Amino acid sequence: MRILVTGGAGFVGARLARALLARGALSGRAIGELVIADQFPAPADLAQHPSVRVHVGPMLEQLALFASGFDSVFHLASAVSGECELDFDLGLRSNLDSTRCLLEGLRQAHAATGQVARMVFSSSVAVYGPNPPAPLPDWVDDGQLPSPQTSYGAHKLMCEYLLADYSRKGYIDGRSARLMTVTVRPGKPNGAASGFFSGIIREPLAGIEAVCPVDASVSHCMASPDNTVAALIAIHEAPREALGGRYGINLPSVRVTVGEMLQALEQVAGPRVRARVRFERDERIAGIVNDWARGARFGRAQALGLRADASFAAIIEQYIADCRRTGNTAALRGLDG
Amino acid sequence: MRILVTGGAGFVGARLARALLARGALSGRAIGELVIADQFPAPADLAQHPSVRVHVGPMLEQLALFASGFDSVFHLASAVSGECELDFDLGLRSNLDSTRCLLEGLRQAHAATGQVARMVFSSSVAVYGPNPPAPLPDWVDDGQLPSPQTSYGAHKLMCEYLLADYSRKGYIDGRSARLMTVTVRPGKPNGAASGFFSGIIREPLAGIEAVCPVDASVSHCMASPDNTVAALIAIHEAPREALGGRYGINLPSVRVTVGEMLQALEQVAGPRVRARVRFERDERIAGIVNDWARGARFGRAQALGLRADASFAAIIEQYIADCRRTGNTAALRGLDG
Repeated sequence: MRILVTGGAGFVGARLARALLARGALSGRAIGELVIADQFPAPADLAQHPSVRVHVGPMLEQLALFASGFDSVFHLASAVSGECELDFDLGLRSNLDSTRCLLEGLRQAHAATGQVARMVFSSSVAVYGPNPPAPLPDWVDDGQLPSPQTSYGAHKLMCEYLLADYSRKGYIDGRSARLMTVTVRPGKPNGAASGFFSGIIREPLAGIEAVCPVDASVSHCMASPDNTVAALIAIHEAPREALGGRYGINLPSVRVTVGEMLQALEQVAGPRVRARVRFERDERIAGIVNDWARGARFGRAQALGLRADASFAAIIEQYIADCRRTGNTAALRGLDG
Repeated sequence: MRILVTGGAGFVGARLARALLARGALSGRAIGELVIADQFPAPADLAQHPSVRVHVGPMLEQLALFASGFDSVFHLASAVSGECELDFDLGLRSNLDSTRCLLEGLRQAHAATGQVARMVFSSSVAVYGPNPPAPLPDWVDDGQLPSPQTSYGAHKLMCEYLLADYSRKGYIDGRSARLMTVTVRPGKPNGAASGFFSGIIREPLAGIEAVCPVDASVSHCMASPDNTVAALIAIHEAPREALGGRYGINLPSVRVTVGEMLQALEQVAGPRVRARVRFERDERIAGIVNDWARGARFGRAQALGLRADASFAAIIEQYIADCRRTGNTAALRGLDG
C-alpha cells in the first residue's frame, strides 16, 4: 500500500512515519511506499529509508502528488496557532487552502480510479471555546459545540466539516483526530501559543531558565508523542462503521495544571531542575490559553480502545528516554548527576 | 451610507433591497447608495432606482468592488442545496470561495481605511443534522451541534466560522442569520431540494398540478419572505453587544407538516386548489429532507424582538397579496371565483 504523511518532516509526522515503517503494515496491508510531503527536508533516517519518498515544498504546489493514488493519508502539515494569530493569511493558506488542495487531489484520484483514500486529519482541541452566555465547561467532550477562539482553531474546524462532506460524498474515507497538546516537544519553541507547555519542561532539563507565561493553576490536556502517534494509527485502522457516522474524535489526554506539571518535573528530575522555571505572565499567551479547554473527555477514542498516558511524569520520562536513545546529551545537561 | 446586497437580484435579495430603499435608512443612517451584486441582472425597478448601482457577474470577479468601502453588507448570493448536491465544484465555488472573496475584500477595505463593515450572512437551517448516535432532536435550537448532511449546509457552516473569525479579528462586524425555508417562492422551481415546499402551494394556485415528493407527515420550519427580510434588517441593526459574543442566529419560523400546509391552502384557496397536489415519493429529495430540522427554536432571535409569521395560512395570504399587487394574474389562475 501507498501512504502519504503531510508534515512528515515535523515532530509528530516524522515520529508517525518511523512508527509506520517499524510496523511495516497498516490496516493489515504491507506498506510498499511511504511518501513524506513537507515544506522542510525530512530527517536523514527517513529520507534514506528505501520505502520512503520525500517531496519538499508548499502543499499548494503538490496537487499532482496528492492525486497520484494513495491508499492512506495522514495530514499533519499545519501552521501553528501563535503564528496564525500573527499572520492571518498564513493561516488561511497553510491550514485551510492546503487541506483543500489535498482533499481535491484525493477526489481527483477517486474520479480517475475509484480509489477511496482513508485519511486521518490532525484537527485540534483548539476547536473548542466558550459559547456565551455559557462559559467553556470544565471538561469538553466529543459532543461539545465547537467555538474556536483562534484562526488556527477556526480553520481546523472548517477542515473537519470539509473532510466530513468529502467523506459523505464517498470521495474519501476521512476522520478528524482532535490532537491534544503534545508534550514534550524537543528543539526550539515553534511559535505555537501552547509552546510553553513543552518549554517549561524541556528548558530546565537542558539547564536553561524557562519562563511560564500563565498561572500555575491553568490546566490543560496533554498527550505524549508516542500516545498521539498510537492514537493516529488506531483511528486510521478503525473501520468506518466504528466511527458511527461522525468524523471528529478527541484524542486521549491527561488533564494537568501547570503546577502539577512542575511537581512531576521535580519528581522525575529533582528540585534544582524545577527551580529553573519562573512565572512571568504574558497577556497575549494567557489570553489565548484562557479560552482553551481545561480538560477533555475522550469517550469516542475510549470506545476504540485508546487510553491516555499513565501520568504527566510518564510523559516527561518518555522525553528523557528519547533524548538518551538519540544521544542528545545537550537536552539533558541540566539533569542532576 | 453605502450598502452591498449580494444576490440582490434574487427572490429574497431583491425584496430586501426594496425594503431598504423604502425605509431610506439603516441603523439610523440615510442610505446613500445601494449596490446590488448578482450574476443575473437586477429587476428593472431596482436597476432604475437612482440610489442603486448594479454589478452583474460572478462574485469571484468582484474583489475590487467588495474592497471599495461598504458600511453594510447583506450576503445572500448562494447556489442552492439541490444543485450543490449535483455539482460539488459549483458549491465550493459559489458558496465557499465567493464568501471568502467577499470577506477578503472587506478586510482589504479595513486595512486601507479602518472601516469595519457590518455584514449579515445568509446561513441556513441546513447546517443542522443528526449527530449519531443521537438522532436529530425534534426541535433544533441555536445551540444544537451542527452536522450538515449536504454540501450546501457544510459550506454555509464553514462560512459561519470564517465570518466569526474575521469578526473576532476586528476586520468586520459579522452575523450569520440561519434562514429557514422561505415560502412561497414565486416563479419556477429553483433546484433547491426544499423547492417543493413552495411548489405545492404555488402550482395549485396557478391552476397547475403539483407533485409532493415527501410524506404528508414531514414537518419543517417555514418563514415568509417579508418575515425573513424583516429579520435580516433587525439582525443588522442589533448592536454587536446584543449578540453576546456569538454569531449564528436561527431566524424565526413556523413549524408545519406538509399535511398542515395543504390544510392551510384549502382554508385560504378552497378544496379545488388543494386537490391539485398529489403525492409521489422522490427518494433523493425525501432522503435529503429526512435529515433536515423538523422544527427550529429561535431563542436568540426572540431576544432581539423577532417573531415568526402568525400561521402558514398567513404566509399563503402574503403570497396571494404579492401576486395581486404586482398584477401577476397568471399566478392566481387556479383560484376559485
